[in-house]
Amino acid sequence: MNERVLVKQLQSAPDGPVSVSGWVETVRDQKKVQFVILRDETGAVQLVNPATRELGDDADAAREAALALTETISALATGTFLTVTGELKHDERVKLGGVEIKVGALEIAAAANPETPIAADSSADKRMDWRFIDLRQRRNNLIFRVQTTFEHALRTYWIERDYIEVHTPKLMASPSESNAELFALEYFNDQTAYLAQSPQFFKQMAQVAGFGKIFEIAPAFRADPSFTSRHATEFTSIDAEISWIDSHEDVARMQEELLQFAFQAVADKHGAEVKELFDVEVQVPSIPFPRIPLAEALEIVKSRGYEVPRTDGDLDPEGERQIAAYVQETYGHQFVFITDYHPAIRAFYHMRDEETGLTKSYDLLFNGVEITTGAQREHRVDVLVEQAKEKGLDPEHLDFYLDFFRFGAPPHGGFGMGLARVLMLMLGESSIREVTYLFRGPTRLAP
Amino acid sequence: MNERVLVKQLQSAPDGPVSVSGWVETVRDQKKVQFVILRDETGAVQLVNPATRELGDDADAAREAALALTETISALATGTFLTVTGELKHDERVKLGGVEIKVGALEIAAAANPETPIAADSSADKRMDWRFIDLRQRRNNLIFRVQTTFEHALRTYWIERDYIEVHTPKLMASPSESNAELFALEYFNDQTAYLAQSPQFFKQMAQVAGFGKIFEIAPAFRADPSFTSRHATEFTSIDAEISWIDSHEDVARMQEELLQFAFQAVADKHGAEVKELFDVEVQVPSIPFPRIPLAEALEIVKSRGYEVPRTDGDLDPEGERQIAAYVQETYGHQFVFITDYHPAIRAFYHMRDEETGLTKSYDLLFNGVEITTGAQREHRVDVLVEQAKEKGLDPEHLDFYLDFFRFGAPPHGGFGMGLARVLMLMLGESSIREVTYLFRGPTRLAP
Repeated sequence: MNERVLVKQLQSAPDGPVSVSGWVETVRDQKKVQFVILRDETGAVQLVNPATRELGDDADAAREAALALTETISALATGTFLTVTGELKHDERVKLGGVEIKVGALEIAAAANPETPIAADSSADKRMDWRFIDLRQRRNNLIFRVQTTFEHALRTYWIERDYIEVHTPKLMASPSESNAELFALEYFNDQTAYLAQSPQFFKQMAQVAGFGKIFEIAPAFRADPSFTSRHATEFTSIDAEISWIDSHEDVARMQEELLQFAFQAVADKHGAEVKELFDVEVQVPSIPFPRIPLAEALEIVKSRGYEVPRTDGDLDPEGERQIAAYVQETYGHQFVFITDYHPAIRAFYHMRDEETGLTKSYDLLFNGVEITTGAQREHRVDVLVEQAKEKGLDPEHLDFYLDFFRFGAPPHGGFGMGLARVLMLMLGESSIREVTYLFRGPTRLAP
Repeated sequence: MNERVLVKQLQSAPDGPVSVSGWVETVRDQKKVQFVILRDETGAVQLVNPATRELGDDADAAREAALALTETISALATGTFLTVTGELKHDERVKLGGVEIKVGALEIAAAANPETPIAADSSADKRMDWRFIDLRQRRNNLIFRVQTTFEHALRTYWIERDYIEVHTPKLMASPSESNAELFALEYFNDQTAYLAQSPQFFKQMAQVAGFGKIFEIAPAFRADPSFTSRHATEFTSIDAEISWIDSHEDVARMQEELLQFAFQAVADKHGAEVKELFDVEVQVPSIPFPRIPLAEALEIVKSRGYEVPRTDGDLDPEGERQIAAYVQETYGHQFVFITDYHPAIRAFYHMRDEETGLTKSYDLLFNGVEITTGAQREHRVDVLVEQAKEKGLDPEHLDFYLDFFRFGAPPHGGFGMGLARVLMLMLGESSIREVTYLFRGPTRLAP
C-alpha cells in the first residue's frame, strides 16, 4: 500500500520508477503504440506501451513478456481496476498533466465486464441504475468532495462555538411532524414505529435538557409521493437549535454566518474545479442576507406581473423564482430570508409575535428555491397546547413532546436545511438526484 | 441574546451588572437570605437575595418589589428556566467558582412543574422515561461534549487525509447484512423496504466508484431482541472504507492511528472533567495496538483457566474479558486486535488468506468489549459468489451488490465501529444506554 503514488503527486515526482493504481478510462490501441488513460480519485494519467504484435524470429523471454503485455492492454475493458508499475517521464508535449508512464508491469485487480451499461449521456434514470459507474465521472466525484468540505465547515463553525453534536433517534413511537407522508413499520411487542420526518422534537428536547446549542446532520424520511427535482423519500437534513434567543432573527443571523463560512471553505478548496467542471462560480454570500416579509414579497411578485395562484397566502415555486430574480437585481444576492408567515401555513410549534400574530419564522431561499425553514419555537406549554388544538391536533398524541415543556424550558429556535438542495443550487444542477449518493424516491429504492 | 453571559465567563468578568440565563438546580430559602444555584450549559453559579418577608410600616414601591422578588424565589421549582440580571461580585469565600450574583431582577422563561419525576438515583428505566431531565446532570452533559469532540476528531483525521464523506441510504430494497434482525416497512408500489443494518454494501460501492477513501457516521438499525448492555435497535455506526490495501492490516493501522488521534483530542479537552465526574483517566493508546490471532487468543484464555463454551471457535464475552486482562497485564494496553478468524464465523464478503484459508479480518476489543469488525473485502466477483453460496445465500438476492464488482473493482477494506460502545468504555459506564441521547431497544421506543 505504501508504494502507491497518487496521480496528483506525479507532476512533482522525479522521473523514474513509479507505481500507480486506478481504473481504465480509455484505451487507444494503435498498431505501434498503446495509450491507456488511467484515473484514480485524484486525477488521470497517460500510460504508454510500445506494442509488440508478434514474437518474430528472435523470440526470447523478454519478447514473450512484451507480447503478453501488449495483448493484456488490448483486452483492457473500461473500468478495469489495475496497478501499473513503470517509468515516469515528464514531457510537456503530453497534454494530460505533462507526464506519462511507460508501462513496465500491469496487475489487474478486477477486470470490468466490457459491456459498460451506461455512458455519460445516458438518461438520469439509467445512470441511477448504475450509479456506481456513474459516480466515476470526474464531476460526480467532485460533488462529493464539495459535500465533504461543506459539511466539515458547518461542523467546524459550530464546534468552534461550543455546539454539542447529537444523534436523535430515527425510530419513533409517534410522528415527528405530521401524520401525512409517514413511513410506519412493525416494531417489537406489536408496537408501530415511525421513521423520523425530521429531528424537530428531539432537537428541541436538547434545549430543555440544557444543552444550549446543538447540531445534527442525519437522514430524515418522508413518504412523499412527489416526483419533483427537490423531493426525496430519504434525505440528509442539516439541523441546529439554540437556546436563549430573542426571536427567529437570532437563528437567521447564525445561519447566514454559518453559510458564509461554509461557502467560503468550498470556494477556497474547490472553486476553480467547480468552475471548470460545472461552469459556475461558488459565490460566497455577503451578510446580512436580505430579509423580506412574506406580505411584501407577495406584493413584489405581483408588481412583476405574476399572481400567485395559491389561496393560502404562501409563495409557490414560480413566486419564489420571481423573488429570487428581484433580490438578485436589487441586492445582487443569491439568498433571501422570507419572514413573518401567517400561523395558518406554519407548524403549530412556531412561536407567534404578540403584536402582529404572525409567526416568528422564516424560509431561506437560495437562487429561488427554499432550502430552510427556521423559527423560534413556542416554549410555553399552555400556549403550545392551544396552538396544537387550533391545528386540529390531539394534544394527547403529542404528550411525550408537550412533557418536554412542563419541567422548565428556555426560549429557543433553530432551522432545518436540506443538504442536497444546497449542493444542487451551489453547483447549478437541475435535480437533487444528481447530488445525492444514492437517491431514494417513490420508484427508486435500489441499488 | 447578546447580553447573556455564560457562567464559565463569570470568573473573568469584572464586578458589576451582569445577566445570566439557565435553570434552577437548587433553592436554599433561608429566613434572612435566599440562595439559588443556577446552572447553564457551561457551569453553575450562586444567586443571592436578601429576603424581604413583609412590607412593614415603611412600605413603598421598592419594598413591594423586594417582597415580590422574595416570594418569586421562594416559589421557584427545580428546573425552571430563567434569566437573572444583577450584580456580579467576586468573593473567594463562595465555594462555587468564587463568584456570586446579587439578584436584581428575575425573568422566568418557563416554570417547571414542581413535582420532578426523577432524581439522580432513580432507576435507569425511569430516568430514560424522563431523559430530558436526566440529561441536565452535569455528567450527562459532559458525555455529549465528549461525543462531539471525539467525532469531530475522527472526521478531522479523515478529512486531513482526503477522505470523502458519504451518506448512504438507510432505506434499501434488500437486507444489507443478513435476513435476521431486519426491520421491514411498506414502501411505495407494494414494495417492501428494509432499514439498513449497516452501510456495508454502499460503502463498498464507493470503492468501485473510485472514491478511494470514505467515511460515514450515521444511524444503523437492527431488530435485535437482546437486552444486553451493548445492544440497541438503533445505533450510531462509525464507518470507513479504503481502496488499494494489501490486507486488513492496512485497515487496522488506519484505525489505531485514528483512535489515538481522537482519544488525544478528548483527553486534551475533557480529561480533567472526565476524571472529576467519572473518576476515570482518558488513556491515549500507544500504537501499534497489540495483535493476537484468534487461535492464540483461545489458548491464552484456556491457560488462564477459562474454557470458552462456544462450539463455533469464537470468543465469548468472558473470553474477551480474559484476553483484555491478559493484554493489560502483558502490554499495559486497553486495546487489542484479534485477527485470523475462520470463515465460518465471518461474513461471506470477508476476503480469505490464500495460504491459511482464514479471513483477512479482525475484531477490535476495547477493555474487553468488541467495538469493531474490520476486514479486507473480497472484490473478485467469482470468488464472492462462491463464498455467498457456501453461506447458503442466494446470489440472485445479492445481485445488486454483486453487480458492483462486475465492472471493475479495487482491493479494499474497512471497519464499522459502534459509537456508544466506545463512549461507554472510555467513560467507564456500565451500559450504552447511559451514553446514548435517546436509547432504542425492544421495549424502548419513547420518548
